[in-house]
Amino acid sequence: MNHPETFTEGQSLSNSGKNTTLPTIAPGIWAELREIVSEPYLLTDEPALQQHGHDETEDLVFLPQGVLEPINTDQISRIMRLCTRERIPVTVRGGGSGLAGGALPTHGGLVISMRRFDQILHIDERNFQVIVEPGVITENLQNTLKNKGLFYPPDPSSRGWSFIGGNISTNAGGPKAVKYGVVKDHVLNLEVVLPDGEIIWTGANTLKNSTGYNLTQLMVGSEGTLGIVTKIVLKLQPYPTQNLLMLVPFHSAESACAAVAAIFQAGVTPSGLEFMERNAIDWAVRYVGETPVPIQESDAAHLLIEVDGFHMDSLVADCETITRVLEQFDCGEIFFADDDTTKTALWKLRRNVAHAVKKNSIYKEEDTVVPRAELPELLKKVKEVGARYGFESVCYGHAGDGNLHVNILRGALSEEAWQQDIPKGIREIFQFVKSVGGTISGEHGIGLVQRPYVDIVFSETERRLMREIKKVFDPLGILNPGKALG
Amino acid sequence: MNHPETFTEGQSLSNSGKNTTLPTIAPGIWAELREIVSEPYLLTDEPALQQHGHDETEDLVFLPQGVLEPINTDQISRIMRLCTRERIPVTVRGGGSGLAGGALPTHGGLVISMRRFDQILHIDERNFQVIVEPGVITENLQNTLKNKGLFYPPDPSSRGWSFIGGNISTNAGGPKAVKYGVVKDHVLNLEVVLPDGEIIWTGANTLKNSTGYNLTQLMVGSEGTLGIVTKIVLKLQPYPTQNLLMLVPFHSAESACAAVAAIFQAGVTPSGLEFMERNAIDWAVRYVGETPVPIQESDAAHLLIEVDGFHMDSLVADCETITRVLEQFDCGEIFFADDDTTKTALWKLRRNVAHAVKKNSIYKEEDTVVPRAELPELLKKVKEVGARYGFESVCYGHAGDGNLHVNILRGALSEEAWQQDIPKGIREIFQFVKSVGGTISGEHGIGLVQRPYVDIVFSETERRLMREIKKVFDPLGILNPGKALG
Repeated sequence: MNHPETFTEGQSLSNSGKNTTLPTIAPGIWAELREIVSEPYLLTDEPALQQHGHDETEDLVFLPQGVLEPINTDQISRIMRLCTRERIPVTVRGGGSGLAGGALPTHGGLVISMRRFDQILHIDERNFQVIVEPGVITENLQNTLKNKGLFYPPDPSSRGWSFIGGNISTNAGGPKAVKYGVVKDHVLNLEVVLPDGEIIWTGANTLKNSTGYNLTQLMVGSEGTLGIVTKIVLKLQPYPTQNLLMLVPFHSAESACAAVAAIFQAGVTPSGLEFMERNAIDWAVRYVGETPVPIQESDAAHLLIEVDGFHMDSLVADCETITRVLEQFDCGEIFFADDDTTKTALWKLRRNVAHAVKKNSIYKEEDTVVPRAELPELLKKVKEVGARYGFESVCYGHAGDGNLHVNILRGALSEEAWQQDIPKGIREIFQFVKSVGGTISGEHGIGLVQRPYVDIVFSETERRLMREIKKVFDPLGILNPGKALG
Repeated sequence: MNHPETFTEGQSLSNSGKNTTLPTIAPGIWAELREIVSEPYLLTDEPALQQHGHDETEDLVFLPQGVLEPINTDQISRIMRLCTRERIPVTVRGGGSGLAGGALPTHGGLVISMRRFDQILHIDERNFQVIVEPGVITENLQNTLKNKGLFYPPDPSSRGWSFIGGNISTNAGGPKAVKYGVVKDHVLNLEVVLPDGEIIWTGANTLKNSTGYNLTQLMVGSEGTLGIVTKIVLKLQPYPTQNLLMLVPFHSAESACAAVAAIFQAGVTPSGLEFMERNAIDWAVRYVGETPVPIQESDAAHLLIEVDGFHMDSLVADCETITRVLEQFDCGEIFFADDDTTKTALWKLRRNVAHAVKKNSIYKEEDTVVPRAELPELLKKVKEVGARYGFESVCYGHAGDGNLHVNILRGALSEEAWQQDIPKGIREIFQFVKSVGGTISGEHGIGLVQRPYVDIVFSETERRLMREIKKVFDPLGILNPGKALG
């Protein structure tokens, strides 16, 4: 076959949704692949290629040449041995909820869909651990565990359709991360197929580990560029039996942001502390079609605050502390959700902001993260840059973590403004983020679309180390080429 | 100068405390070093070499040829540029409390002591973060933070003299890890000098990060083999205002171990859950010279159980739950520590077990870790292997984490038994540990003395990946050669 020797990380790509040069996959190769996964699980029809050519990132589409749906580690190992031999690029795909283009097959080749890796293999109730395949939908895993009184906290907004393996690839977070940590804090051990087909385990099924380099944490957040995760060992904890939820309106968005750090300083660690700008909640209300609490004309922003635990008295005391703090920050009347239906309705609003924005306009989602006390300044900066570059933005996110999602709306912007000018504005925002100790992605990843900005947060030496680590795992550069690294 | 080209990881070493071949360091090199650190901070006298030639590992001594005491990142960068040019091996040393020989300069060359990196640079009370130099003593850092209501939980038994940088190098744990996690869970960002003198930061000062490969977590636990940590950003939390502590005797050691998992299954996560065999607590009582509670003839083992938080009512409820669980496990009368003096006295006993054992006999300390419900079987295995190989062992440790320290006493064993037979018994114990999902070190590291056992837990492919990662950071192999990797 005719193929490039390796896929260099710097390879230029048309960003317009077209693959530049595609590898040739000879008929004999297709036959070999069909032997590994069997006929119905090798897809080359146009609808399948289209479906696997995009995720939730802007309107980008890059078609693969084929889609494989293997069902076990051995099949993936055999596929990768073949792809190594033939230098075929491989992009692994979870639920397809990515917002940074990490699952886009920009170099063509094959997509490996993990959808048939959908088994929860073993719930170890004695040790509070679960062994799960990467294609299990996050919320399904959480619900199954909850029925046994067990808790796996990381819950990205996409949890209803994202895969647990995809969550690992981006080190996902979600609202609960503020108290319980992100995905990396819950992964104990991973089975991984390397690009050459070798199978490894990265660690041990233990809470402590001081044995060799931490390959587990190297894999988490590596966006499918180092290996293919095929089994996952997660640590669990008892499911909190009690929670309280409040929605707090503020007359100024900056006051809302400023209240965030003050809550922690008062000694309370909420299990959720979400920020929504006025237009974020407005759009979500319109999208969802209902709200348990009327939004007042004077509300500029809201905080959604949850505390959880096992003793209601403690939670009530925490809420009293929070209320005392909030009173110092120009807030409006606090709304307490006093039953499960109302709680669900409030969380539904928050979880649907992204969908609501998407329905209104194509947008670039920036996943800024800063030390939480820097949030007010970050918000000010975003609006100031927007005013200069002429873009509207909708800001919301996990304020307790300092993780602010900045949705930049395409609206009526010209192609030139969208492609040329807006990235300059984004660069200014990211430079500010870096200057206060933050970084350019908190939970979505670098993927494809944040690559042009990686130089802001990493020096050439740091990028070189990452490129060389990539080469250790994937010397031919066949696994998710063109992603994650700067 | 006359030097080997690189230091290969497999290089054979005399284990008798003698370096085999030492690099030659010419007079001109010493002069250059003196120019970097100034006269009083380059030590070559015999007492200094002796002091830096051992840590707390058995009775092993390997003398370096010189000791440097730099004071800032720039000095370390210049030292490393010189050592790269001259291929001089460098071993970095913290407080010297290591139990796996990680700080022993087995290849001679230079020791860099971090003792003058002793500044707490910035306590960020708004963001619950601290920037600290690696030579700060862990307990000093904790006490300074506590005075401001802030909590950095990891507290190895050696915290009174170990350095925070050393804690990072081994991914240390300690009693609080069961609730609050180990060192890796608290490190946000690191400044690191690479072997060639380049200076990098590994991450960002944020709670979430999905930006590139996780170099921070690659550095934590790498035992000084990848780079020299010169600044550390740690995340903090509010200091828990309340705690309760109880000492629980059991008539059988296996019952004590079996109770551990049951406590978690009842929905309580203690902030400390320590196990001590009868002889561990006996020796500690003798070593410390006092005990707040008499040890009964029938006590075969004890659990020391702490709960902490912010609301005393919740803690009392937790203790009631724990008490109900314990009653099912053949325990004796539970002793509640009802004042700070008694609590301190109980923790003092626990923290001095290692010192007490050391005073009795040279010992090999094995740092086994398993999923916590496997503890009873592990303990049984240790005793069974001991009976066959003729060694006495003292077992104690962080039972809540499944982390059992197995101290194998030299006692009257012959040199041959100590060097040849005991390692076979250790291998059997480690093979058992691996078979139940555990690993060979939970918090002490592989260092020098656990290297012969690494093949039990990592395949050749896994070890190759680690060796190649080492080469990415340290192509000449000058940084802590002969450590950590199998």
